[in-house]
Amino acid sequence: MRIFDIIAKKRDGGELTKEEIEFFIQGYTAGAIEDYQASALVMAIYINGMSKRETADLTLAMAHSGDMADLSGINGVKVDKHSTGGVGDKTTMVVAPLVASFGVPVAKMSGRGLGHTGGTIDKLESIRGFQTAMPIEKFIENVNTIHIAVVGQTGDLAPADKKLYALRDVTATISSIPLIASSIMSKKIAGGADAIVLDVKFGDGAFMKTLEDAKTLAKAMVDIGEMVGRKTVAVISNMNEPLGLAIGNALEVEEAVATLKGNGPRDFETVCVELAAQMLCLAGKGSTDTLKEELHTRLQNGVAFEKFKEFVAAQGGDVSVIENLDLLPSAESVEPIYAKKSGYINKIEAEKLGIASMLLGGGRAKKTDLIDYGVGIILNKKVADFVNVGDKIADLYVNDRSKLADAVSLIDEAFSYQEERLEEETLIAGIIRGDEN
Amino acid sequence: MRIFDIIAKKRDGGELTKEEIEFFIQGYTAGAIEDYQASALVMAIYINGMSKRETADLTLAMAHSGDMADLSGINGVKVDKHSTGGVGDKTTMVVAPLVASFGVPVAKMSGRGLGHTGGTIDKLESIRGFQTAMPIEKFIENVNTIHIAVVGQTGDLAPADKKLYALRDVTATISSIPLIASSIMSKKIAGGADAIVLDVKFGDGAFMKTLEDAKTLAKAMVDIGEMVGRKTVAVISNMNEPLGLAIGNALEVEEAVATLKGNGPRDFETVCVELAAQMLCLAGKGSTDTLKEELHTRLQNGVAFEKFKEFVAAQGGDVSVIENLDLLPSAESVEPIYAKKSGYINKIEAEKLGIASMLLGGGRAKKTDLIDYGVGIILNKKVADFVNVGDKIADLYVNDRSKLADAVSLIDEAFSYQEERLEEETLIAGIIRGDEN
Repeated sequence: MRIFDIIAKKRDGGELTKEEIEFFIQGYTAGAIEDYQASALVMAIYINGMSKRETADLTLAMAHSGDMADLSGINGVKVDKHSTGGVGDKTTMVVAPLVASFGVPVAKMSGRGLGHTGGTIDKLESIRGFQTAMPIEKFIENVNTIHIAVVGQTGDLAPADKKLYALRDVTATISSIPLIASSIMSKKIAGGADAIVLDVKFGDGAFMKTLEDAKTLAKAMVDIGEMVGRKTVAVISNMNEPLGLAIGNALEVEEAVATLKGNGPRDFETVCVELAAQMLCLAGKGSTDTLKEELHTRLQNGVAFEKFKEFVAAQGGDVSVIENLDLLPSAESVEPIYAKKSGYINKIEAEKLGIASMLLGGGRAKKTDLIDYGVGIILNKKVADFVNVGDKIADLYVNDRSKLADAVSLIDEAFSYQEERLEEETLIAGIIRGDEN
Repeated sequence: MRIFDIIAKKRDGGELTKEEIEFFIQGYTAGAIEDYQASALVMAIYINGMSKRETADLTLAMAHSGDMADLSGINGVKVDKHSTGGVGDKTTMVVAPLVASFGVPVAKMSGRGLGHTGGTIDKLESIRGFQTAMPIEKFIENVNTIHIAVVGQTGDLAPADKKLYALRDVTATISSIPLIASSIMSKKIAGGADAIVLDVKFGDGAFMKTLEDAKTLAKAMVDIGEMVGRKTVAVISNMNEPLGLAIGNALEVEEAVATLKGNGPRDFETVCVELAAQMLCLAGKGSTDTLKEELHTRLQNGVAFEKFKEFVAAQGGDVSVIENLDLLPSAESVEPIYAKKSGYINKIEAEKLGIASMLLGGGRAKKTDLIDYGVGIILNKKVADFVNVGDKIADLYVNDRSKLADAVSLIDEAFSYQEERLEEETLIAGIIRGDEN
């Protein structure tokens, strides 16, 4: 087999065999296939597409390109969750304890933030003492006893995906449905998931700009799940603004805790409950409608919050911080931002807020940057709210003032206004299931 | 400007501007644009194509990526010739003296052979004393006095094309009409041609397999010529067998001399006369029909041969070798090859003969290999001839016998036979001219 012939086949619109796809992924991971050959092939895939079968084979080849997490020691159906939106996404901190409170195992490997996106691992580390690294035996033991553990990604999961993604990033081949779908799913499969719930965002602030594109991507991922024997469900949600009000590590922990105690922003609670219901449904815990009712109850009655505290304690976190949020890392000053226009807010661009938070120290411009846990943004207004010039739209939590001006102008840019009152938009725009689910 | 955006534009089927194409070619030549970015762009060009305007801009950008031959010191219209077929192609040795005999300047830079293709420079060097390198002043002086000079390529002509061709060769992106057309034309333009005659082959042994493909490529090159102000004409010829009977350096000189004296193989003479007539026509010497008659006469009456001898003498070659061909380098032994089947010969694959000749020492497997000028192949039969088993189909001229067996089996493979008599095929299948020519 020669990579030249594989490139030529896809160039001419042919369908690659499982063996050809494995030859490419193994060769590329091992360095036997050059970047310039991989980028030619990937461009041909971008333009000519891939069948469902090819996409599933690519997913499995990438999943098997490195370590495969062995979670066979965990009892029960391990349902994983993935979100395609990365700004202000604190869903894991709410969804994971909710699901675990039903005795369903949540064995989550999570990432760190980079650029405008935040990472669950960074957020949890703003709780004093919280450990996000542990031996695999301890990880499995925690899941088997309290049904929840969240750790940083260990091992070399799907290195082919990492290498290919970096190449796609500089060759204008990111936004291909089969390539995005296989990239996401390969990591979930390498991470040991039995079933997967996907949170697929659409809107100006999301990777998929339209509902239609989001549904296409969701369908592609659900198809992969079906072909590789992992039940997969996708929740399509609107992202013309960040979920909730908080962006920044400790600020998001605060918002998650409020939500776990039944006092969270309504949009955020809605999405968390939907995702948890879908996960529990895949784990065989009943219908999503019944589950959603019970989930709202568990946020109100303290069950979810108790599970969260149990989780924090089990990973070495100081529970008193969770009980008294004033003990979280904080910022020296709070800078209010005022509206420069009047009108109905029709969009709050999450990516710009994410960059603003990063500039304040809440995120990393490069992998080795340190994080300032206390800084970030709290929105005072949301999409569809009416504001007059001079109304406060957000508070900035600031320590280092050197990049404050840049952050402020990004926040000004992030808000768009219109004169007419907005039509009510549905937050959850659809659920995509496989035919067999 | 960013290469990323240029790749994305072509990926989505957009038309690149002149500035974008120049940015790519200059950046890639300078090493500022990576191979993996260039290969992604080239694949997008391969699949989505290029307009006539883009192809012309790419040609000029590549032509200007290195040295441009300055032939302004030469009087008259400099018409260059390029052939897409490289096995047994000794046309330059006949066409150049023919054209020069009309006082039209032939200032030719030519290449060396590699792999299965031969090079004019190597063939001429089989004449004792012949120099293929000279100072540019001497080159121009020779053209101005005797109207002919042929030298090896000097300087760094179209380095972008060289780099891009090497990349395309390993990324399955060679056979794209705009990329092939711009590659050929960029070198002719950098070489200083005022007008260009292209010899485009088609058939099993040629790069373009069908007449239709050859016409498409020819049309693309003629279009480029028109857009960049170089009158260009393409002659489409059939290549289901090598032109003439000889393959190998000294053997081809012999055949060229025979042709210059009016005793050459008919197919070879036909193509040489056609090409020379087209060149002379572009130089304003009359209609091709009248010219062809005169050209055949000049092969018969010694005018062409006299010009060739003048040319050889002017470049230091020993004219006695041309007058007595026994003085050319020769082979120790001649091995006859006999037909293994009976039937009408329907194909003689030039590429296999080219490799066989290379194995015998007549060509280079790698650039640094030395050439044995005396070895090669003389065909005893041509397409449409009937042979019985055991009839001699070719003679091999051999010095080193170590690769003889391999060469013999390649020659056996090169011949195909059929039971029915062949339809007469037209050798010259068409002439492609620009609208303004």
